[in-house]
Amino acid sequence: MTLKSIAILGSTGSIGTQALDVIRANSALFSVSILSAGNNVDLLIQQCIEFQPKYAIIGNKDKFTILKEGLINTNVTVLATVDGICEALEQAHSDIVLTALVGYAGLKPTLTAIDKGITIALANKETLVVAGELVTQKAKENNVSIIPVDSEHSAIFQCLVGEESNPIEKVILTASGGPFRGKKKEELLGVTKAQALKHPNWSMGAKITIDSASLMNKGLEVIEAKWLFDVEDNQIDVVVHPQSIVHSLVQFEDGSLKAQLGLPDMKLPIQYALGYPKRIISNFERFNFAAYPTLTFEAPDKDTFVNLQLAYRALADKGNSACILNAANEIAVERFLNDEIKFLEIAELNAYCMENYKHILTPNYTDYVQTDTDVRELAKSWK
Amino acid sequence: MTLKSIAILGSTGSIGTQALDVIRANSALFSVSILSAGNNVDLLIQQCIEFQPKYAIIGNKDKFTILKEGLINTNVTVLATVDGICEALEQAHSDIVLTALVGYAGLKPTLTAIDKGITIALANKETLVVAGELVTQKAKENNVSIIPVDSEHSAIFQCLVGEESNPIEKVILTASGGPFRGKKKEELLGVTKAQALKHPNWSMGAKITIDSASLMNKGLEVIEAKWLFDVEDNQIDVVVHPQSIVHSLVQFEDGSLKAQLGLPDMKLPIQYALGYPKRIISNFERFNFAAYPTLTFEAPDKDTFVNLQLAYRALADKGNSACILNAANEIAVERFLNDEIKFLEIAELNAYCMENYKHILTPNYTDYVQTDTDVRELAKSWK
Repeated sequence: MTLKSIAILGSTGSIGTQALDVIRANSALFSVSILSAGNNVDLLIQQCIEFQPKYAIIGNKDKFTILKEGLINTNVTVLATVDGICEALEQAHSDIVLTALVGYAGLKPTLTAIDKGITIALANKETLVVAGELVTQKAKENNVSIIPVDSEHSAIFQCLVGEESNPIEKVILTASGGPFRGKKKEELLGVTKAQALKHPNWSMGAKITIDSASLMNKGLEVIEAKWLFDVEDNQIDVVVHPQSIVHSLVQFEDGSLKAQLGLPDMKLPIQYALGYPKRIISNFERFNFAAYPTLTFEAPDKDTFVNLQLAYRALADKGNSACILNAANEIAVERFLNDEIKFLEIAELNAYCMENYKHILTPNYTDYVQTDTDVRELAKSWK
Repeated sequence: MTLKSIAILGSTGSIGTQALDVIRANSALFSVSILSAGNNVDLLIQQCIEFQPKYAIIGNKDKFTILKEGLINTNVTVLATVDGICEALEQAHSDIVLTALVGYAGLKPTLTAIDKGITIALANKETLVVAGELVTQKAKENNVSIIPVDSEHSAIFQCLVGEESNPIEKVILTASGGPFRGKKKEELLGVTKAQALKHPNWSMGAKITIDSASLMNKGLEVIEAKWLFDVEDNQIDVVVHPQSIVHSLVQFEDGSLKAQLGLPDMKLPIQYALGYPKRIISNFERFNFAAYPTLTFEAPDKDTFVNLQLAYRALADKGNSACILNAANEIAVERFLNDEIKFLEIAELNAYCMENYKHILTPNYTDYVQTDTDVRELAKSWK
């Protein structure tokens, strides 16, 4: 394997730091071209000093001067905002862009990278949720591979390797069920932020952890799966699997299923995406059936976790529906974390926005941007 | 997919008849070149009339005349014995030979087919157990693919598709545990033939069903896996999985595991082997987690089921050791089915032969034949 040059967008987050762990452990295989962070300028400076990228970008432009001063004795070119990311992608050579930004912010840089023909390691599912049709179409035109980093989609991707000529009958996404699995609506009325932030299996950022608790994360993954694997709504199933060992499955037209399994450790799908098609030898802890003698599977409770229903509805509605749902949900989670709304109100707010914002069946990029902006306002004004 | 011509050796057995079901359901994809059976001449005649192969061979030469007369009004050429099979393989064009004969008898025809460059769909695991080194070496020289039909090895084979450049860290064979799972030696002292013939999940022939009850089948599969996937003894694990849904797993060097799953139905791996690399659309019943909400896994009890230990010992001893074990076991099962020995004595007889027959480290074909003949005598004379 020749040295691959990696751009990491969102390098100070959970995915970003784990990606840098992988790169650090495999310095003969990877170098770093670009690092970007939203707010955590101290960690970004530290990462730049260690990995010496060509570019460093801070999302929050108020922190640009701190970044600039922190890297004054290096060769790192310093920029700010999403436009800075896009400029760096234009200027620096990268073999792979790991898009690990949070939320909608990932869309523009992803489109820029696709235009440049750079392979996408996609950790920012919102990119496909918001504008899956546009992004996958553009990727196809530019012959750009999108390698998923989400553990579920990485599992499906791994199962599909070598099966290119065999159509998918169904993909089955596994869901841990989150901290509130088995609970009914009445029991979720008063749940606290701390309870929602406590994921049973995965250690992740705040946004995705809340999304896991509300099953919105699985809903977003359903939408993501549609675009990544070019399947119809009725070819995507969700099964709750509390142990998070079977990361997802594919069913083929002969009835055979393939699954990818392992301990819940995001380093594995991150490393897989960076190394693909080569699997890199790792010292990650190995899965052992002795520690997991029983694996269980159950249907998701869509009545309690309405967000999952909303995601399927967004798929059925097509157009800008998923963009509406995503924008609403980003604000809903923000408002929940700010103690402005209750846990169950996340789904209520999402449903409200889907019902009240105008549906556009064939949106262009500008329509997506407008939808996102408008729905955020709508979501902020709810209640 | 162009029409493939299939030779079925052992067409009246469990695998053979299911293979013909697959061919019947996919007559635009498959034709039949050769059908052979050991004893069941009536069914063989019926099959030949339906599928019109070029050759029909009966193993038991006493039944040759019946076969000849039964096919007098057809264009089927009729032969007898293993030599007849080999002659038919030489004469008729076949794209794939499905080797579904029982026991050691599969070796010679398999070697003939490999010499002819015909793809092997291997259902006769004894071929690899007895002479895995010879067979795989010859297959490599002749650039012949061996596609496993055993559900476990088919699972591993399916998981390895597209992973050619990624070394295997470990293969994990699943075992149902058979009808006596969880029983200790004391409880197995008086088990009957009827009990041993009652497999919880799979409907198979008598020999393999007894082998499943004694875990010899899993032992033979361990040896088969070594040769099929070119792994070392310590890279092959066995895990008991009573539901027989996860058919086996592969662990790669990055720590990721892939598994193939499905309902226990041999038609799936048979069809996969015949259609490979194309998966053929089937109407086989689909797996559903609702029917299998809990999958369990446990370590095999090697103290009670000694045969599994013997298989690993045979692998470690190399040379003709697995050939000794297989020959001993074929007689042991025969003697158990004839009420000559008890269930637990199957493993005792196997161990006795391994300890008392001469070890040859680098056997040639003649050595294998001699070992097989001698050990059968030794096994018959035990007790």
